[in-house]
Amino acid sequence: MSGVITLTTDFGTADPFAGIMKGVILSIHPPARIVDITHAIEPQNVLQAAYVLESAWRWFPKHTVHVAVVDPGVGGSRRAMAFKRGNTIFVGPDNGLFTGLLEADSQCHELKNPKYRLPEVSGTFHGRDVFAPAAAWIARGTPLKSLGPPLKNPVRLDRPQAAWTGKALEGEVIHIDRFGNAATNISRELIAQHFLRKTPLTVRIGRQSVGGLSSHYAEIPSGRTGAVINSWNVLEVFERDGNAARRLKLKVGRKIRVTR
Amino acid sequence: MSGVITLTTDFGTADPFAGIMKGVILSIHPPARIVDITHAIEPQNVLQAAYVLESAWRWFPKHTVHVAVVDPGVGGSRRAMAFKRGNTIFVGPDNGLFTGLLEADSQCHELKNPKYRLPEVSGTFHGRDVFAPAAAWIARGTPLKSLGPPLKNPVRLDRPQAAWTGKALEGEVIHIDRFGNAATNISRELIAQHFLRKTPLTVRIGRQSVGGLSSHYAEIPSGRTGAVINSWNVLEVFERDGNAARRLKLKVGRKIRVTR
Amino acid sequence: MSGVITLTTDFGTADPFAGIMKGVILSIHPPARIVDITHAIEPQNVLQAAYVLESAWRWFPKHTVHVAVVDPGVGGSRRAMAFKRGNTIFVGPDNGLFTGLLEADSQCHELKNPKYRLPEVSGTFHGRDVFAPAAAWIARGTPLKSLGPPLKNPVRLDRPQAAWTGKALEGEVIHIDRFGNAATNISRELIAQHFLRKTPLTVRIGRQSVGGLSSHYAEIPSGRTGAVINSWNVLEVFERDGNAARRLKLKVGRKIRVTR
Repeated sequence: MSGVITLTTDFGTADPFAGIMKGVILSIHPPARIVDITHAIEPQNVLQAAYVLESAWRWFPKHTVHVAVVDPGVGGSRRAMAFKRGNTIFVGPDNGLFTGLLEADSQCHELKNPKYRLPEVSGTFHGRDVFAPAAAWIARGTPLKSLGPPLKNPVRLDRPQAAWTGKALEGEVIHIDRFGNAATNISRELIAQHFLRKTPLTVRIGRQSVGGLSSHYAEIPSGRTGAVINSWNVLEVFERDGNAARRLKLKVGRKIRVTR
Repeated sequence: MSGVITLTTDFGTADPFAGIMKGVILSIHPPARIVDITHAIEPQNVLQAAYVLESAWRWFPKHTVHVAVVDPGVGGSRRAMAFKRGNTIFVGPDNGLFTGLLEADSQCHELKNPKYRLPEVSGTFHGRDVFAPAAAWIARGTPLKSLGPPLKNPVRLDRPQAAWTGKALEGEVIHIDRFGNAATNISRELIAQHFLRKTPLTVRIGRQSVGGLSSHYAEIPSGRTGAVINSWNVLEVFERDGNAARRLKLKVGRKIRVTR
Repeated sequence: MSGVITLTTDFGTADPFAGIMKGVILSIHPPARIVDITHAIEPQNVLQAAYVLESAWRWFPKHTVHVAVVDPGVGGSRRAMAFKRGNTIFVGPDNGLFTGLLEADSQCHELKNPKYRLPEVSGTFHGRDVFAPAAAWIARGTPLKSLGPPLKNPVRLDRPQAAWTGKALEGEVIHIDRFGNAATNISRELIAQHFLRKTPLTVRIGRQSVGGLSSHYAEIPSGRTGAVINSWNVLEVFERDGNAARRLKLKVGRKIRVTR
């Protein structure tokens, strides 16, 4: 056990929800090391949380427990789950949050064992009553199978995939960061698969070119737009020393094309 | 000692104030585990900090030291204090922050002993110079009585109380969270005291019904408003998959009534 | 080694960048204690980060490693560096971030040794690939000279200095905090050097007086503006129970004068 537990939620940091989850974790497993990935997921935007977690989880120690709570169905019939991927454990509601992290043969468990929940479970805050305790017990060494029975057919979201049209790679913006950089669902691998290495590429929004592919931001002049393969290995549109999302009016879902 | 120290302030997270308090704490007590409850209390809103701390403190390990700093009187004549409630310790300015946490016989101490302050105490930042050191020393095991003499008559705020009119429970909104859910000062106990279990209740704002009492958010259809007993056991008005505060133009202080 | 590592960045807390840096640090040095100073530096505002770090670093334990990443030149020709000041270590890009912390004879090292970077270094996120690993290795005890060769002539920013005109001290606003308090580059020392102790002083913006020098905020009536020597020992303009920056329309760069 590394003892590292991360939190990814839509709770914000103005209210005490994230702090309360930490209190519960430290009550059960005092040596836990808790790291915030983010609490700024848009309220109830499960898809956004999925992308953020997918971009982050690889960089944590082995045996890290990642807790994600974006949970519009709290208190209702949606299931609570945990599963392992390699040495890493994920804990959260079964609502599609883990779409890109689940493998075909992932063994999921439903968090049903009352021994590993708080004594009273509210109808509105399972981050505190179900998910934080599960994560703390797992970090203490509790095997997943003790937490509850196998959970079959976890929810998977249908997400837009980038596609090759014969001439171009077509994808879309999936995340806009604080700098206004727009990440897309066009991966480094997909580009390598369809274009010869060193082919000069053009990135387009509609008919407009936003530039070619750079190796880093400072490769193009200040105020120009361009694209890079970003730190999570997907194509990203940026403005050097500026804010591409504002400049190009980009939003999540905007179509992006890569051509020769 | 659990070594857990929490922080509740109006410092925000853009400025280095909260980080500096942590530096001071770790300088005095290196194994301390510091948890942010929130730094987003509205500047100088002592009442809001009091509600937030009251909703959060129970979820932390025994011997946790909760430091709260919302301190418009810093450097002036307001006293600095610490007291115990059961196994939990509270540290902060004597300005009403602890109104709901103080018991009739709480033994408060004034933080006067220079040994447990920083060598130089500024006129503007007692979070750093007085409260962080006191918390760190307490977490190290220093008894409260070493920190200074008894403090008599700590400040208590006069807060609005919910009341029974003979027909209805009348209270008001005391906190609006990130989701637009509006917590009130009408507690689960008060409702249980005045209405028979399972009586269908109606929650009203003025003459308008906002719905009945649900057990969890997903019990009512998307886009409808309703009420729940929330995770800190008070009546809360919400909109399923929406933002009740925006929809109903709720603010802190808005009157809420519960009737049969 | 104290094991304390702080982070000062312009990454915000909505995106997972800061969390990822923590994952990398804990992978290399599991006992590290990570403290956020701030992630809310304005995108690419190196000067602002420099002021914030200068106001904060003194309050941390000996052997703390302060990592600052505001890095518009990431992936290009700007160098990556680390240096010691007394018992404290600073790590970040060589772009002027450390202007006020570098001493005349500071021994800087360039972070070139691939052994202390991640195996693959991206063109866009050296916080993760270069600076977090360097900090973690330093906190583990790696000597700075192992990280890379000496770095000569680190970048120093030309910053506005307060000046004595013969009658007045003239400086400017360098930082505005969450409360609307405006810190200036007029230090306590400079005031002591040019005015006799206890001389009543007047602080002016243009021809307008904003008040005299108080010892703490609550010394003047509510709603009035004034000045204090703030918690990092510079002159600060404030409004009692209000927001001086909004009231006086202050911005970074606004000229401030102190006269008898």
